[in-house]
Amino acid sequence: MQSAIERILPFDEEAAAAAERHSDGLTKPPGSLGKLEAIARQLAGIAGGLWPELSRRAVIVMAGDHGVCEEGVSAFPAEVTPQMVLNFLEGGAAVNVLARQSGADVVCVDIGVNAELKHERLVSRKIRMGTANMAAGPAMLRGEAAAAVRTGIEIAERLAQEGVRLFATGEMGIGNTTASAALASVLAGIDPERSVGSGTGIDEQRRRHKVDVVKKAIAVNEPDAADPLGVLAKVGGLEIAGLVGVIIGAAASRCPVVIDGYISTAAALVAVRLAPGVKPYLIGSHLSMEQGHRDLLQAVGLSPLIQLDMRLGEGTGAVLCFHFIDAALGLMQEMATFESAGISKG
Amino acid sequence: MQSAIERILPFDEEAAAAAERHSDGLTKPPGSLGKLEAIARQLAGIAGGLWPELSRRAVIVMAGDHGVCEEGVSAFPAEVTPQMVLNFLEGGAAVNVLARQSGADVVCVDIGVNAELKHERLVSRKIRMGTANMAAGPAMLRGEAAAAVRTGIEIAERLAQEGVRLFATGEMGIGNTTASAALASVLAGIDPERSVGSGTGIDEQRRRHKVDVVKKAIAVNEPDAADPLGVLAKVGGLEIAGLVGVIIGAAASRCPVVIDGYISTAAALVAVRLAPGVKPYLIGSHLSMEQGHRDLLQAVGLSPLIQLDMRLGEGTGAVLCFHFIDAALGLMQEMATFESAGISKG
Repeated sequence: MQSAIERILPFDEEAAAAAERHSDGLTKPPGSLGKLEAIARQLAGIAGGLWPELSRRAVIVMAGDHGVCEEGVSAFPAEVTPQMVLNFLEGGAAVNVLARQSGADVVCVDIGVNAELKHERLVSRKIRMGTANMAAGPAMLRGEAAAAVRTGIEIAERLAQEGVRLFATGEMGIGNTTASAALASVLAGIDPERSVGSGTGIDEQRRRHKVDVVKKAIAVNEPDAADPLGVLAKVGGLEIAGLVGVIIGAAASRCPVVIDGYISTAAALVAVRLAPGVKPYLIGSHLSMEQGHRDLLQAVGLSPLIQLDMRLGEGTGAVLCFHFIDAALGLMQEMATFESAGISKG
Repeated sequence: MQSAIERILPFDEEAAAAAERHSDGLTKPPGSLGKLEAIARQLAGIAGGLWPELSRRAVIVMAGDHGVCEEGVSAFPAEVTPQMVLNFLEGGAAVNVLARQSGADVVCVDIGVNAELKHERLVSRKIRMGTANMAAGPAMLRGEAAAAVRTGIEIAERLAQEGVRLFATGEMGIGNTTASAALASVLAGIDPERSVGSGTGIDEQRRRHKVDVVKKAIAVNEPDAADPLGVLAKVGGLEIAGLVGVIIGAAASRCPVVIDGYISTAAALVAVRLAPGVKPYLIGSHLSMEQGHRDLLQAVGLSPLIQLDMRLGEGTGAVLCFHFIDAALGLMQEMATFESAGISKG
């Protein structure tokens, strides 16, 4: 893990400034393309030049189960995790459709599903059969969390070597908004009353119960916010740890990584705490319906591009935002300049 | 105009309900795709069935000049209008790039540019050489406003007959945020202090002056909010009137029309007042940086999908949102159902 973190290059401010100069010469009032100009600037700073070729892209869907489900925190039974993994592999889930539309591969990783899974397209890297119930003790061992992070790093770096230049984070794991809420509360200091949302659709009574479960998990495990890996092991999840690795591996490969919803943003928070150098490589995507998401994005320092009232995960919001990356790059590469078009400046 | 308005069919609630039922059977928590599900529902209700084929799409860029520019309300000189029209026709403007990415045609219409323009791809339907200065009298005659609306209807209906099934509104006209602010103030009762923004980038002192100009235009012309065509003639613009027509023509052709930023939303407000039946055919796109846009969207009854801090117009925000229409339709057509994928329901 440490060697990947050390390979992360600083953001190239010179390339970013060159991108900005180029943008200001295009036939539009300066800054009028808003966040699309900011994305173009960021992509140049990440790649270290104008304009990166990002046509090979992948969404990494990490799947894992959560022992805390035995507390009754989710609207869906835990068996849905392996069922949905097969759905991803057969191409029938929402993220598959959106990935096809944006030319992205879906790479589905079993990093901790509590079922035996076999499929020719599955990346089988199971660390353990789901986490333990964090309301009764640590979700996993510190070494397991570290192994899951390393797995994510390896997968992202291998894909980057194969030519992937743009990543999105995705996940599947019944119970994982509960773990994410615990991470948000410990690492960002967000009160469980605010960090706990209704996930895939529980009612207010069940949400109150979920708040109590998160409080209990924190009380039982006494995680130390200054030790992000320890927090991840105690109240995190295997797929969340895997995504922490994907983020580090993407940054170490000098690739932008688009962060999906609540669970992915929790992973991004852990990643930023473990390796602050990843921050400039992150691109926010959507503001989900999960109530703590706005605070969590703020804690990571990300601002969302879209707000479509989605609450699905899988990487769906992130993959939707690949479109804005294509738009930003297309505008920079194809628009006329004031000079070439003979247009008067204001 | 009246015959087109009478051809507008009511929204098909049955088809919309069928879309909703289909959506609820897909492998995701009900409603978890948020506004994408709402778009799918709306598209079904517009077309009267699942799922409309919307691959032929066009953004209609109406261009016109504004006599009120002589009051010094814009950051750019009026000569930029014809210069930008040529840029659209040569494919070098932002809207051209985004339209290419989403498979849309850019149809550029000279409906009132204050210059002689000739180009093989220009749709020349000039009503007059720009409007008169609305701070000194009516921007145009009532008959001219009606002719501009009819022109927009004809263009949209002709394109629909040629196979275009999805429209976006776009415009170019130095000074047109001033006219739009006046329309917003008269028709939606938004105080000029709020309806007047900084357009393409004027400073606060110039914005204060622009507020005074809008107030003067309203005082001089005494527009009657109950007479939307009269308001359009007195304090509107030729390209705005053309877009009113595009909206009516699209609705009369049973096609959804995506509304761009501030100027387009002002046109949508006029259209809704002239022909309330167009409302279900409208799809909001982005929330622009123009300060009155949120209030104006609310007055029309639209909610934005994205907020990218854009303030360019041309149809750029609307064309960006074609992506979400493709996403909504793709999800509905390609996702597995709980039954087909053998997944447990919550």
